[in-house]
Amino acid sequence: MTEEFEVTPYKVSGEVDYDELVDRFGTKKIDDDLIDRLARHGPLHIMLRRGIFYSHRDLDWVLDQYDKGVGFTLYTGRGPSGPVHIGHTMPWLFTKYLQDTFKASLWFQLTDDEKFMFYDHLSLEETKRWGYENALDIIALGFDPDLTNIFLDTEYIKTMYPTAVKAAKRINFSTIRAVFGFDNSNNIGSIFFTSIQTVPCFLESMQRESNVPCLIPCGIDQDPHFRVTRDIAEGLGFLKPALVHAKLMPSLAGSEKMSTSTKGEDTVFMTDDEATTKRKIMNAFTGGRVSVEEQRREGGNPEICAVYQYCLYYFEPDDAKLAELHASCQSGSILCGECKSRLFDKVWKFLENHQVAREKAKDRIEEFFVRD
Amino acid sequence: MTEEFEVTPYKVSGEVDYDELVDRFGTKKIDDDLIDRLARHGPLHIMLRRGIFYSHRDLDWVLDQYDKGVGFTLYTGRGPSGPVHIGHTMPWLFTKYLQDTFKASLWFQLTDDEKFMFYDHLSLEETKRWGYENALDIIALGFDPDLTNIFLDTEYIKTMYPTAVKAAKRINFSTIRAVFGFDNSNNIGSIFFTSIQTVPCFLESMQRESNVPCLIPCGIDQDPHFRVTRDIAEGLGFLKPALVHAKLMPSLAGSEKMSTSTKGEDTVFMTDDEATTKRKIMNAFTGGRVSVEEQRREGGNPEICAVYQYCLYYFEPDDAKLAELHASCQSGSILCGECKSRLFDKVWKFLENHQVAREKAKDRIEEFFVRD
Repeated sequence: MTEEFEVTPYKVSGEVDYDELVDRFGTKKIDDDLIDRLARHGPLHIMLRRGIFYSHRDLDWVLDQYDKGVGFTLYTGRGPSGPVHIGHTMPWLFTKYLQDTFKASLWFQLTDDEKFMFYDHLSLEETKRWGYENALDIIALGFDPDLTNIFLDTEYIKTMYPTAVKAAKRINFSTIRAVFGFDNSNNIGSIFFTSIQTVPCFLESMQRESNVPCLIPCGIDQDPHFRVTRDIAEGLGFLKPALVHAKLMPSLAGSEKMSTSTKGEDTVFMTDDEATTKRKIMNAFTGGRVSVEEQRREGGNPEICAVYQYCLYYFEPDDAKLAELHASCQSGSILCGECKSRLFDKVWKFLENHQVAREKAKDRIEEFFVRD
Repeated sequence: MTEEFEVTPYKVSGEVDYDELVDRFGTKKIDDDLIDRLARHGPLHIMLRRGIFYSHRDLDWVLDQYDKGVGFTLYTGRGPSGPVHIGHTMPWLFTKYLQDTFKASLWFQLTDDEKFMFYDHLSLEETKRWGYENALDIIALGFDPDLTNIFLDTEYIKTMYPTAVKAAKRINFSTIRAVFGFDNSNNIGSIFFTSIQTVPCFLESMQRESNVPCLIPCGIDQDPHFRVTRDIAEGLGFLKPALVHAKLMPSLAGSEKMSTSTKGEDTVFMTDDEATTKRKIMNAFTGGRVSVEEQRREGGNPEICAVYQYCLYYFEPDDAKLAELHASCQSGSILCGECKSRLFDKVWKFLENHQVAREKAKDRIEEFFVRD
């Protein structure tokens, strides 16, 4: 029997059953037909192959529109409450794949207002500063500057506010209570916020003064925002945004969603140095046994192992090697230390390259940012 | 026994007992000392003499600040949902008196976002258009262009939004329920709105980067917004705004607050022509009797008479003449037709001058407007 779990943009708790979540949210699984269809546009992304991006709303329709020559725009975002970690970058790397494959424009929202209103300990000045810090990580991933618009809510509000207000008029507090689990103790900014979150779905259409389909790659925890958006989009004269949903990357402690609210030891930040990265990975939660002897005899459990999950999500792109790793773990022929060390090499190579690109990004902010 | 009544920025119902409202809202009456103090700065405004502006919060403190040389700024506003009527201009004329007397700067907010979110039948484009229409009436009243900043919320949102978000973080839905009588069926824009309404109290301080006392002249129905503001102002690093409250001008039908939601026959708009103005005033509700004979015998009742109220509020500035009118009505020596005709002459003179100034205001918009 499945343990109780809860998933909203503001709370993930319990052991998430991703298949059940598809039923609960009323989304669709990405099926083999859709996978085949995506594969015809270019090499299939690892996160599609591995079922990390596994759920969608109207992704088939977006591909129809693309095939008809209408094209589509992409929208994703980041709540700038602290440094970016590896888990954050997973949907962004997937977004880059979509941009590269479909030559799609991208609206990248930094919700400095949201993070300020939801976190007691952060000032608006701090979330804005984190927005610019986080933008360096976004730019470093290699998005096309000609196709990418990064913006902070507080710096793009004049453009967004009229549409946000039109959205807000169509959403009552009953809906917010039901969708986000809010109550009377929520502040009125947090209650209003989903109407700001709605607008980037329509920014390309607003700019072109003509409706453009929008596809949102995001963690499935963000889906509730866009269920609200989809309910009101047509009433506002826009197309319903489509979504493609990822499972949430586990932390190094093995929990459902990497979080920056721990002291940071469960999470590899994009700016961590080599020693820090090594320490964190070497301390990761694994599916190993209490002793070497027992592990050699009984084998480990890759399914609950954070190190294996990291490989699965991104860090072992070779499917054959991943399968081998899985088997070796189960048979007891590989021990956790070796696996961790192997993962560290891959993660550190990724971070090292990223950190070089991130330095260069400091001179490239203006190539990407849009402001009122 | 007092009839049940309700006063919020969004609903005025029943027969308002203004003395009781002071107790309910926890404001203070403007007493003789305060009247004397105001009189020392220049001729006392008719609406102070007549007890139309009758309640306040911290007006004495604002005068202290003025006497110390600190000065103060003024803030008032208009919800642009239709044409301006005479009732709207009463607090604005009082605001002009304050500006002239104390050489105070003025922030005049046009809440196009609010009126759109609260009225089903209005589009945001319409409320914005009404904003510019209404601004002509505001400018025509003679505010000092060097001291006056008029702005539409949607055009000044980039300046206001960060502070609105900081305000919103400190206000929860429980407070909104209690203060405005909202419930779960309210849209999330209407719930958020009071945080936008809060910001103009601080605009002068934000612009000068130094705290400036703010005085808000307004109808007492608007007080709840600023009770919320006063609760959070110091937490945001600003001074609590002070208020001076007016009673609500009755309509020509004799009800508590003039309203543009009737078909307009109970209300004289600033752009009404002579014939329309005459028709409306000649059809006004009075305290007259059913027949001339009865009125000559029993006298009329000026207390319930809309024509008398118009004279009291503004249109008979001579206190001796007003007293004479009151007595003549009660004694039956003057009949309603004569009173109406007398009022019409005064109102039409006021409107005629206004309409000339309003035409000229069309070329003066840019002297007054501020935008992001």
